Amino acid sequence: MSESHERFMSHAIELAKRGMGFVSPNPMVGAVVVRDGKILGEGWHERYGGLHAERNAIADCLKNGHECEGADLYVTLEPCCHYGKTPPCTEAVIENGFRRVFIGSGDPNPLVAGKGITLLREHGIEVTEGVLSDECRRLNEIFFYYITEKTPFVTMKYAMTLDGKIACHTGLSKWVTGETARERVQYERLRHSAIMVGVGTVLADDPKLTCRLPGGRDPVRIICDSRLRTPADSYIVRTAGRIRTIIACAEGYDTKKADILQKSGCIILPAGSGRTDLRLLMKVLAEEQKIDSVLLEGGAELNWSALESGIVCAVQAYIAPKLFGGNTAKSPVGGIGAESPDKSYLVDDYRTEQLGDDILIEGRVSYVHRDN
Amino acid sequence: MSESHERFMSHAIELAKRGMGFVSPNPMVGAVVVRDGKILGEGWHERYGGLHAERNAIADCLKNGHECEGADLYVTLEPCCHYGKTPPCTEAVIENGFRRVFIGSGDPNPLVAGKGITLLREHGIEVTEGVLSDECRRLNEIFFYYITEKTPFVTMKYAMTLDGKIACHTGLSKWVTGETARERVQYERLRHSAIMVGVGTVLADDPKLTCRLPGGRDPVRIICDSRLRTPADSYIVRTAGRIRTIIACAEGYDTKKADILQKSGCIILPAGSGRTDLRLLMKVLAEEQKIDSVLLEGGAELNWSALESGIVCAVQAYIAPKLFGGNTAKSPVGGIGAESPDKSYLVDDYRTEQLGDDILIEGRVSYVHRDN
Repeated sequence: MSESHERFMSHAIELAKRGMGFVSPNPMVGAVVVRDGKILGEGWHERYGGLHAERNAIADCLKNGHECEGADLYVTLEPCCHYGKTPPCTEAVIENGFRRVFIGSGDPNPLVAGKGITLLREHGIEVTEGVLSDECRRLNEIFFYYITEKTPFVTMKYAMTLDGKIACHTGLSKWVTGETARERVQYERLRHSAIMVGVGTVLADDPKLTCRLPGGRDPVRIICDSRLRTPADSYIVRTAGRIRTIIACAEGYDTKKADILQKSGCIILPAGSGRTDLRLLMKVLAEEQKIDSVLLEGGAELNWSALESGIVCAVQAYIAPKLFGGNTAKSPVGGIGAESPDKSYLVDDYRTEQLGDDILIEGRVSYVHRDN
Repeated sequence: MSESHERFMSHAIELAKRGMGFVSPNPMVGAVVVRDGKILGEGWHERYGGLHAERNAIADCLKNGHECEGADLYVTLEPCCHYGKTPPCTEAVIENGFRRVFIGSGDPNPLVAGKGITLLREHGIEVTEGVLSDECRRLNEIFFYYITEKTPFVTMKYAMTLDGKIACHTGLSKWVTGETARERVQYERLRHSAIMVGVGTVLADDPKLTCRLPGGRDPVRIICDSRLRTPADSYIVRTAGRIRTIIACAEGYDTKKADILQKSGCIILPAGSGRTDLRLLMKVLAEEQKIDSVLLEGGAELNWSALESGIVCAVQAYIAPKLFGGNTAKSPVGGIGAESPDKSYLVDDYRTEQLGDDILIEGRVSYVHRDN
């Protein structure tokens, strides 16, 4: 693949990311119109329900006084060919007379899935697939998972010391990691539609669970709270009127308490009996709440329950180069735990990243136990 | 620095490493004789008490039928200028008429410390210092620490999962890391003069604590065992006749038990009263046993004691991309632990390395508590 194709696609990826946090459960998409090595227009999918990247790029091109006739279009995702909230993008690409279209990754959405590309080719447009395909796939790993599995992409996130502690034995945990890592977590709160914690975290810390990036948007807040112990005067409940807040409980919950929480704006979502059924909860979140992704910022118990229920897709371990020690200091994953090393959960395809003084290790959780 | 100087020095470093495990408490040193860009001879310090690298390189050169007159010498460490077990190397360098000498790092040994370089220059030899100095210093970090601090360089090593567990809740720990990481530990057993564990490890696993690298040599074995609970029929005691084995205990130990262990060849080393005083023990190991380095393969309690006593210089955390979970699963550092994050032990100047599927994070332990 020539360098200039990759350069334009790389630019389209950067444009796509500007939609992060605002397009869910749609994918992030960026598009660039190019002729003779010059960018004539650019666009991205800006918010859910708004125009798609291709149409925004075409409009930008025309606004700049350029025709698209005979030009090239770089787009991070296969153009859609179906009527959704907006008319199909393939239509606009064909009508505007593009000569060539360069595509990053195919769209696994069964409504598109190669049909968009076929349609373009039928109209004599030269289509090149797979330009920076790995990067484009990574850009929308959440969307791809959600659209095919119909359940949210769950990322288990925790910050620990180099000796595996998430807090001191006294419970103090401010801070394990430094500013750069903590800012990255804010970015993850933007990248994911929702954030989930256990009620224990609410009782202990009364957290905000907002996204503190400038220009960001707050994630939906999900509290795993089978018996509705979330205090009515907690920050989360007090702000439930303006930030969507879901209290996930189990059947047999206290309806009076539920009334109080609902009046504050909380959504009460029963899933399972006795304790919250996380797998069922995820299905309900995907179907009823259109939540495509959850950042799990749980404590040790919730993390283990989430792993055991099989809902965790990815793990992000932020590791601080320090040692807390302490037999009773909490570690990131609790519960009963695996019986033997060959029964552990594996983390595949991981990559490491330096974040200030800290290290992020991020990978996919595998539910296939392997022998060493 | 020109590329060819670095190339020859790099070769000298590789030669030096061949002495690993056999020259302690001397430094590892490699030397290369070069004329017109060609290597005429090479050598390294092969074993404690044997010839130094420079003399071995000169001998190799002469054996190959070349004179050293007017040639260049690349040596990883400043040549010695004092009479020790062998005559000073500076003498040989001067006598053989070298034109130039390229040196990796200076020798902090107060008996040398720049005097070697001065002497060479006084004899009209052109000396260039600091060729690949970082690599050369790293090569002998153990020696440099030992010679200046007069106490062993202690590396705390542990293997843990990405959720900070060194074993499953059942105690099973075979294996946390994969083969490549475990082989690296064998290399570390060669690089360090001694290996240290707590008696708990001996009671639980009856380990060998040998170096299983082909052509390697077994480290001195040190068991922290204040009350002499090491079983007389343990592998370690049974093999104490052929592998130096030190049982570090505390005053008031059972002299009858000590007799039994001594008869098997164990060295009984009391340090401290009540429990083993690790700081005192290290002094005794350095002075009486000439042990320059200790690989601490302790459990959680010994690791914490070692940190608290201030003897740990470096930490090696081998991290496996897997999750054990488990509230009662052991983590690498136990004890009481730090009270708050700002009282933690910091790990400075760390670097990460991929070892098969696993990651090694290795750094220096800092005893200065910093705020974030």
